[in-house]
Amino acid sequence: MTTQIKQARAGHLTSEMEKVAQEERVSPSAIMEGLAHGTIVIPYNRIQPKSCICGIGTGLRTKVNANIGTSKDDPDLDRELEKLDVAIEAGADAVMDLSTGGDIKLLLKKILHTTSVPIGTVPIYQAAIESIEKFGAVVKMPKENLFQVIEEHAKQGVDFITIHAGLTMEAVQRLKKQGRLMDIVSRGGAFLVSWMIHNQRENPLYEYFDQLLDIAQRYDLTLSLGDGLRPGALADATDRAQIQELIILGELAERAWEADVQVMIEGPGHVPMDQIKTNMILQKRLCKNAPFYVLGPLVTDIAPGYDHISSAIGAAIAAQAGADFICYVTPSEHLRLPTADDVREGVIAARIAGHAADITKGVPAALERDKQMSIARKAQDWDAQIQLAIHPKTAEKLRKTSPPLENGTCTMCGEFCAISIVKKFFDRQ
Amino acid sequence: MTTQIKQARAGHLTSEMEKVAQEERVSPSAIMEGLAHGTIVIPYNRIQPKSCICGIGTGLRTKVNANIGTSKDDPDLDRELEKLDVAIEAGADAVMDLSTGGDIKLLLKKILHTTSVPIGTVPIYQAAIESIEKFGAVVKMPKENLFQVIEEHAKQGVDFITIHAGLTMEAVQRLKKQGRLMDIVSRGGAFLVSWMIHNQRENPLYEYFDQLLDIAQRYDLTLSLGDGLRPGALADATDRAQIQELIILGELAERAWEADVQVMIEGPGHVPMDQIKTNMILQKRLCKNAPFYVLGPLVTDIAPGYDHISSAIGAAIAAQAGADFICYVTPSEHLRLPTADDVREGVIAARIAGHAADITKGVPAALERDKQMSIARKAQDWDAQIQLAIHPKTAEKLRKTSPPLENGTCTMCGEFCAISIVKKFFDRQ
Repeated sequence: MTTQIKQARAGHLTSEMEKVAQEERVSPSAIMEGLAHGTIVIPYNRIQPKSCICGIGTGLRTKVNANIGTSKDDPDLDRELEKLDVAIEAGADAVMDLSTGGDIKLLLKKILHTTSVPIGTVPIYQAAIESIEKFGAVVKMPKENLFQVIEEHAKQGVDFITIHAGLTMEAVQRLKKQGRLMDIVSRGGAFLVSWMIHNQRENPLYEYFDQLLDIAQRYDLTLSLGDGLRPGALADATDRAQIQELIILGELAERAWEADVQVMIEGPGHVPMDQIKTNMILQKRLCKNAPFYVLGPLVTDIAPGYDHISSAIGAAIAAQAGADFICYVTPSEHLRLPTADDVREGVIAARIAGHAADITKGVPAALERDKQMSIARKAQDWDAQIQLAIHPKTAEKLRKTSPPLENGTCTMCGEFCAISIVKKFFDRQ
Repeated sequence: MTTQIKQARAGHLTSEMEKVAQEERVSPSAIMEGLAHGTIVIPYNRIQPKSCICGIGTGLRTKVNANIGTSKDDPDLDRELEKLDVAIEAGADAVMDLSTGGDIKLLLKKILHTTSVPIGTVPIYQAAIESIEKFGAVVKMPKENLFQVIEEHAKQGVDFITIHAGLTMEAVQRLKKQGRLMDIVSRGGAFLVSWMIHNQRENPLYEYFDQLLDIAQRYDLTLSLGDGLRPGALADATDRAQIQELIILGELAERAWEADVQVMIEGPGHVPMDQIKTNMILQKRLCKNAPFYVLGPLVTDIAPGYDHISSAIGAAIAAQAGADFICYVTPSEHLRLPTADDVREGVIAARIAGHAADITKGVPAALERDKQMSIARKAQDWDAQIQLAIHPKTAEKLRKTSPPLENGTCTMCGEFCAISIVKKFFDRQ
């Protein structure tokens, strides 16, 4: 097996590159060039092929990821499989399984066998849980076990993994000097830092990064370099700890490229609106235009219950400024494990953000659907309006609950519909 | 009776200015100066005092308006009174009654007698309905009737009215030359244009603007100069028709100031993200820093069912760039008259947008609540987190449905809560 980036560099157009080019309405050579330069990734593990091939990066449609997965408090597998279906129905381009409760191996196997979209994981979760089961604590995890889990995921057909390899001793020292409101809010980051402090040893994902690259290369596993020091509060955004880790992630991205491994960079988090663009420019510069995968960012800390909206605002601004891949945030963030309804709302909010940004990014045909919608509105063609809506089922449901008295209108204005009135008096024919 | 702007220009500090200053944590003289220069309005009709005094404009917290009101298709008054309560409970700073169905006079009376916040109307709606009842058509409305309704609203205690006075013959000609996808989507604008075309006469609100100023001055009725030519499609945004009307609104704002009348300007509508800032700068320049009241703007046309999210993205960017007053958009926009639930969701989405922008605008104490939230998160103090949430009831409901097994955590991470882990291993004491 070889990697997409290696093929691209050798000038070989793979069928995956061709499919992405077709889907995105750009030339196959643009995809190949993007892969060769590391500005585009195609997370696609051939061991367990998925029907949707997804390109992520510069010049492409902004993609949306949905996180699902059990917790110890809520370990039901079927509920998570339902969320997988809901996420895909709502239009997620990729799904990450972040399970930490119940039979997580079985769940991942089921997810990989049923899904149509790329699947990502955070292998340290499984490694940490196994370490607790076998050795009584995360901090007692032998570093080999972490790499074993990574290889196990790759062998099963996982397409991309989050690896917090930039959370080094140096970055932790910078964090301590910084003095933060929220310290570390990344679960993977918290596991690693506790391991590092307890064992007084460097982050094994950093120390043995070559071992990781070896696995990634063998399975064409796309690495998503996680930000264990992402800010968990607006007050902590764009601080020295965050930027220190980002610098290290930039260095690691270059090592991945040298090894013909596909790589993207993860980003914050909680960021005030006026710092988002700066964050995007910094990432693109420090990481030489590697695709940027952002979690939100949330533009206020006070919206639990509505963090999908806070995050849609941040994600739209981020995507406009260059973010390529949006990890959704659900209304339940900071409160509970999301329900299937939360998953749907989260995906749709993130898709709106991505689409709004794509209109301004010059993504081919992004505005076309909006124009078609406006034409349908002017024509008072309700079937077309429903069909063109971001989530036709929701639009249809809302309209059906409130049928208008007059054809062509809705119950907001009824006979006083501006479109109806203007048509009568303002006909340019 | 005299107006707030007249008092401010005479150097008299009114009790309303003092209350606004206290509420906003700025000096009373800053409020007085803002009023004198027209950069701040206090929509407050002394005939029917409201307990919440609301300042809108430069340097103040971004405010949120909720539209309620019957339609012919859905004329139930009690439902609208319920929406009024829901809007205020959700944190709306002002409410507009846009009723066009049922006993609209009775409803407005009830609203004015029960509400705590400033109330706005669009008097042409009532004038149009009365004209249909008396003369069989909107186009047969005698211009006097329009001014009678305006005075009637002022006498009853309405605090601000939308007046589409900038929709002149000149602007309509520009619209025709422009060639738009959606022409006119403003109801008031559609009524006026049909009247103007049918009667081949200038917009009476423009032609007799002095008569309007006379009423406004007598009751200290704040004028909200409506944008009848606001774009109803992304493709129509920032076009010659829209900007032509805005130029005329700027001229009318100056005439209002000359007559000691408080005035704000209404803005779009449907606008791509990368044109929003330009729209804000243009309005502030063309209208000499009059407060800007935006409807959305929606950043995509394809989100019916989720237009509160599309609009929250646009409103946040608009407010960051200078918009002072956000009119909410509900999930039902473009589909039906909103339900009470839609009203709540719309208000909260707009409040998140306003708050996120206020953090970047340097509004006093805007970030304080976010900091308190982060401190409560770090302390795993859930009562405080709920209390600090944008809508505590929703946050509480979500958390209660999914109680964690371990104290201090939530069911997302349970025992693997990053905050719990880091506390154990990363204590700086």
